[in-house]
Amino acid sequence: MTDKIKIAIDLMGGENSPDKCLEGINLFISRNNHLNDYIFLLFGDEIKIKEKLKKYKKIKNNYKIFDTKIIVSDELSAISSIKKGKDSSMWKSIQAQIDLNADVSLSAGNTGVFLVMSKMILKTLENVDKPALAGLWPNEKNMNVVLDLGANIECSEKNLIDFSEMGSALYKSLYPSDKAKVSLLNIGLEEVKGTELLKSTYAKLKQLNEFGDFEFKGYIEGNQITKGESNVIVTDGFTGNIALKTAEGTANFLTENLKKSLSENLFSKLSIIFSYFSLKKFKEKLDPRKYNGAIFLGLTGPVVKSHGGTDGLGFSYSVEVSYKIAKGKLIDKIKENLSHTKSLYEKT
Amino acid sequence: MTDKIKIAIDLMGGENSPDKCLEGINLFISRNNHLNDYIFLLFGDEIKIKEKLKKYKKIKNNYKIFDTKIIVSDELSAISSIKKGKDSSMWKSIQAQIDLNADVSLSAGNTGVFLVMSKMILKTLENVDKPALAGLWPNEKNMNVVLDLGANIECSEKNLIDFSEMGSALYKSLYPSDKAKVSLLNIGLEEVKGTELLKSTYAKLKQLNEFGDFEFKGYIEGNQITKGESNVIVTDGFTGNIALKTAEGTANFLTENLKKSLSENLFSKLSIIFSYFSLKKFKEKLDPRKYNGAIFLGLTGPVVKSHGGTDGLGFSYSVEVSYKIAKGKLIDKIKENLSHTKSLYEKT
Repeated sequence: MTDKIKIAIDLMGGENSPDKCLEGINLFISRNNHLNDYIFLLFGDEIKIKEKLKKYKKIKNNYKIFDTKIIVSDELSAISSIKKGKDSSMWKSIQAQIDLNADVSLSAGNTGVFLVMSKMILKTLENVDKPALAGLWPNEKNMNVVLDLGANIECSEKNLIDFSEMGSALYKSLYPSDKAKVSLLNIGLEEVKGTELLKSTYAKLKQLNEFGDFEFKGYIEGNQITKGESNVIVTDGFTGNIALKTAEGTANFLTENLKKSLSENLFSKLSIIFSYFSLKKFKEKLDPRKYNGAIFLGLTGPVVKSHGGTDGLGFSYSVEVSYKIAKGKLIDKIKENLSHTKSLYEKT
Repeated sequence: MTDKIKIAIDLMGGENSPDKCLEGINLFISRNNHLNDYIFLLFGDEIKIKEKLKKYKKIKNNYKIFDTKIIVSDELSAISSIKKGKDSSMWKSIQAQIDLNADVSLSAGNTGVFLVMSKMILKTLENVDKPALAGLWPNEKNMNVVLDLGANIECSEKNLIDFSEMGSALYKSLYPSDKAKVSLLNIGLEEVKGTELLKSTYAKLKQLNEFGDFEFKGYIEGNQITKGESNVIVTDGFTGNIALKTAEGTANFLTENLKKSLSENLFSKLSIIFSYFSLKKFKEKLDPRKYNGAIFLGLTGPVVKSHGGTDGLGFSYSVEVSYKIAKGKLIDKIKENLSHTKSLYEKT
């Protein structure tokens, strides 16, 4: 393969960087060495990076360092970061899609700044009013794409329809052999339930069924998200953010209580010996680091945001998402899907 | 005590009624026999009830049956139920607050019909625009009151402020020795985050601090609900319903996966022997039946809605909530708290 997938990475964002970013890249390569159709464009402090690279043996010949000394700090406001930010590793990792033909950009730095910079550099796609932040959420069968997770606290019908089409494109780029199934998050399943906005969006999504970008499954309630009957869950950024964080909080609450229970006395501690591998598998399956990586949809190029507080393993899954959506031609799929919403709005 | 607390119960609502309702009352008495300051007004089919009562020995001398043959069925719409509903066990259990001086009404029947009937019979309190449905949600320290859970999908600033005052009154009636701590559910903690509605509500709640009905703790994110730093979580009915159901779905997803893990092989099955009591305690602590019972706030009398699908144990906790809020003089507390919001709105 002569045209390798170019993954541009801001190595300096988030906690314990560049260490965790390099560890993450190293882990990604360990899992995907056989593919060998990718190359990393690394932005950050060259001296630090070279020193750290001694530790990460898998990273060799498949990367290029672009020495960048300025770092977007978490303490700065979005505006002041952007003012002095054009020489930062974050900015340059996004700009790489224009200057260096990178296929995707990834950062674990400040979310707000990263979204603003991405929008400034890559611009919003034609016909998209508002880009959306999409995340991955495990379900009983495989994985959900959920959007918007907080980029837009108030949304129009057109926004929600764009989210449905873009979310379906994302799902198909990640799971090419699977069918995208869209549901609208609501407080009941009947067609008459919910806000006027949801009702009109529902009617439009039913019409869009004919294009085959996705199968529209109607409304979904919060307790059905993990069932796997749908895999693209669409909602406004306020509701999506509350739902995601509530799920995180509930999961932490339960696992903390479980841990306490299993270590409260000698007998329960003994039980861990017998259930060690089962519990390990349980933990691994539901490890939130496996779903690390939110995708900002609606720009002319794909950008992925890793949690700032994740570790090397978590970052490796952000690298994986970046690789997959570039390989899966996410932006082409989005453009194709959006052309259908355009025709829908022209018809009416 | 000559003036016993009168708990009016619709015995015919929900699955497996009246059996599960009577089992629930029996369980409640088993736990609270020492108090002996309550009496049950039971609405339903007298013949069936008397037959079943043979099984539930704790229910004796502390009840009165009101023979009611008509049942509000889940298949009927709210409107048709209400038309022919005035002779139903549900209607009469609410009407008992007016005709029979009952202190509280409880049903496991259709939620929509129960809310509409309650509003028709008991009327909304002066100064309350919209009643709200409040639920209990465990946290690390004790319990949260969360409202609104779905009665009002769109809310004004005044609604959210009423919810804060009414939720605090509910909290204090359930936990008299504890302080109510109000937080507004939002997608960030900084004062500038969220919708304009939340920002103006935030400013008003800060002013209400002076009355001491509650301590205003600012915004809360979904992942902090279980932390216990706040105990009255205020939001609109759309967001509250999504948050509650998402938490339920996440909890089910995790416990199902855990169960699968612990029964997948001989070793993990063996582990259950050693952790049996610890896991049992874990399960008991987080058993959703313990939080069964949503309270409809903002009417001139207190009404409690049990899950239709719960069992006897779940129903017993709805009886307990009913008893507690009647004993804790919920309505007096709500009136007192609301008098403060009134003065706030007169000031501005």
